[in-house]
Amino acid sequence: MKDIIIERLEERGVKLKAVADIVYTLQKPYSENLSIDECLESVHKVLEKREVQYTLLTGIALDKLTEKGHIEEPLSSIIKSDEPLYGVDESLALAIANIYGTIGFTSFGYLDKNKFGIMEKLDTNHDKVNTFLDDLVAGIASAASARIAHQKRNEKEAKMKEEKEVS
Amino acid sequence: MKDIIIERLEERGVKLKAVADIVYTLQKPYSENLSIDECLESVHKVLEKREVQYTLLTGIALDKLTEKGHIEEPLSSIIKSDEPLYGVDESLALAIANIYGTIGFTSFGYLDKNKFGIMEKLDTNHDKVNTFLDDLVAGIASAASARIAHQKRNEKEAKMKEEKEVS
Amino acid sequence: MKDIIIERLEERGVKLKAVADIVYTLQKPYSENLSIDECLESVHKVLEKREVQYTLLTGIALDKLTEKGHIEEPLSSIIKSDEPLYGVDESLALAIANIYGTIGFTSFGYLDKNKFGIMEKLDTNHDKVNTFLDDLVAGIASAASARIAHQKRNEKEAKMKEEKEVS
Amino acid sequence: MKDIIIERLEERGVKLKAVADIVYTLQKPYSENLSIDECLESVHKVLEKREVQYTLLTGIALDKLTEKGHIEEPLSSIIKSDEPLYGVDESLALAIANIYGTIGFTSFGYLDKNKFGIMEKLDTNHDKVNTFLDDLVAGIASAASARIAHQKRNEKEAKMKEEKEVS
Repeated sequence: MKDIIIERLEERGVKLKAVADIVYTLQKPYSENLSIDECLESVHKVLEKREVQYTLLTGIALDKLTEKGHIEEPLSSIIKSDEPLYGVDESLALAIANIYGTIGFTSFGYLDKNKFGIMEKLDTNHDKVNTFLDDLVAGIASAASARIAHQKRNEKEAKMKEEKEVS
Repeated sequence: MKDIIIERLEERGVKLKAVADIVYTLQKPYSENLSIDECLESVHKVLEKREVQYTLLTGIALDKLTEKGHIEEPLSSIIKSDEPLYGVDESLALAIANIYGTIGFTSFGYLDKNKFGIMEKLDTNHDKVNTFLDDLVAGIASAASARIAHQKRNEKEAKMKEEKEVS
Repeated sequence: MKDIIIERLEERGVKLKAVADIVYTLQKPYSENLSIDECLESVHKVLEKREVQYTLLTGIALDKLTEKGHIEEPLSSIIKSDEPLYGVDESLALAIANIYGTIGFTSFGYLDKNKFGIMEKLDTNHDKVNTFLDDLVAGIASAASARIAHQKRNEKEAKMKEEKEVS
Repeated sequence: MKDIIIERLEERGVKLKAVADIVYTLQKPYSENLSIDECLESVHKVLEKREVQYTLLTGIALDKLTEKGHIEEPLSSIIKSDEPLYGVDESLALAIANIYGTIGFTSFGYLDKNKFGIMEKLDTNHDKVNTFLDDLVAGIASAASARIAHQKRNEKEAKMKEEKEVS
């Protein structure tokens, strides 16, 4: 299933490397020695979660169905115009952002107001409908970033415990 | 917009009166003197909220598009089989259940395990795809029930204050 | 840290075995061959999550501080009376219930309306303040149950894949 | 009850005017003709919600009890150090931010990373414990801002409908 997800994301113009770049920018200020490879690995881990996969399939389907004209009015215009009070795109993305705890919520909110990298590109590509996709990418990046925050904390605690035992 | 929503719900077999019946069953144990008319009025109030309207349009669209064969695999089979770990139907419904506070969450969870009335009918109608709709109905009923709980509490507090001022 | 949490739960009258019993009741209808030991192991896994630990420490502290009279009015009376519209106890418990996806929300709502086993005992022990604790126990049980649901699903998929490869 | 809340906020150094200033900064880019008075009125409306009141009382109590040394270790150190993975402060604040829909979530995330005005002051006042308070203020401001967004949209729609009827 994960391979299908990666394929669908690429079809819509999203490479995992571009998501890892967002994770790096989010998490770098808090984690010294962070590498892009760790960020990419964390993105992969997020995409292994079944609930994340199902949510991505649904959001991407809604973007594509809107593009193809299969969505009835008034919903079609609401999605096409990325109406700020729509909220369903954020609900889906938050379900992803949240999988490693509430810390993912705040990154998501930050990205929503400061779109950069691939998110900015998606947001300004007016040939396609990316109403769901740009939020979903922010959700994946937020979850991957939260995962690294927890991990780095665990490593630090393990190290502190070890030093204590040695001394 | 509210009229469109009511029309769409009726097209899918959901009359507001049937939703009000669920609200009545949920809320009756806590509110003496509760009438079906109050429950129906509360359902109407919930349906006036823009975010609720948008969420309903989206969920109903997904059910209908699945019925029509417009959703690609593997998502189509997941929605058709109402896969218990899918989660997107619950996410949308919870965004509705939650509009009058966390109290709506618990009613939703209860309804999800104890489907009755119109919910049971939707769940066992195998000609149609109602994966989203049965959860959305539970979401509306939970929100309408939470609204009544808050209202009854306000009335009680106002009365207590009045009695205190008189004495 | 996990040991501290287990100790605090036991001090408040909650043995992990009693939580595992709730998980078993929740999950048994969906998972044949489920054992109490698997449920207990799942409870342990939930308690290893840092965000769960922090939430439990906070909720238990609020119960104890209310008992000791350290909480100012009007909050003290609201917590003591387990006011149904309070909502903070549910918010904390839902943050736990949710760690393995939205499926945990529905179990939580069900338990909130159908308190049994240790939850019923906590709810009717009027010497102590357990406003937070009974919801937190429901949150742990819901998360542990969601974890098993995901796991059983993974096993089933792995088996299906294997059978496909053999044939 | 609302008066008690306003009093408690002021005791902790938070004037409603300062919260209204944050709302203004958040919402000004989207709403022309926005006045500080409208923002202040929106903050008042948020504080009238019972669930908001209860959440504020709880968070402020936790800050004060930590200051007074009534919270046991290890929780006391976690709250004092505003440990980034704690999460309970964000959970409470998000329950407030969310009362006018998911749109409040994104403002909250933005404020969490861009503390300004009264939030910055709270965050850098090291004589006091404001771990909960700075997030709660962000939650109130986010909800008040979401309320204005919905309201402005309603006004616009009413105007469009009127113009349509005239022509």
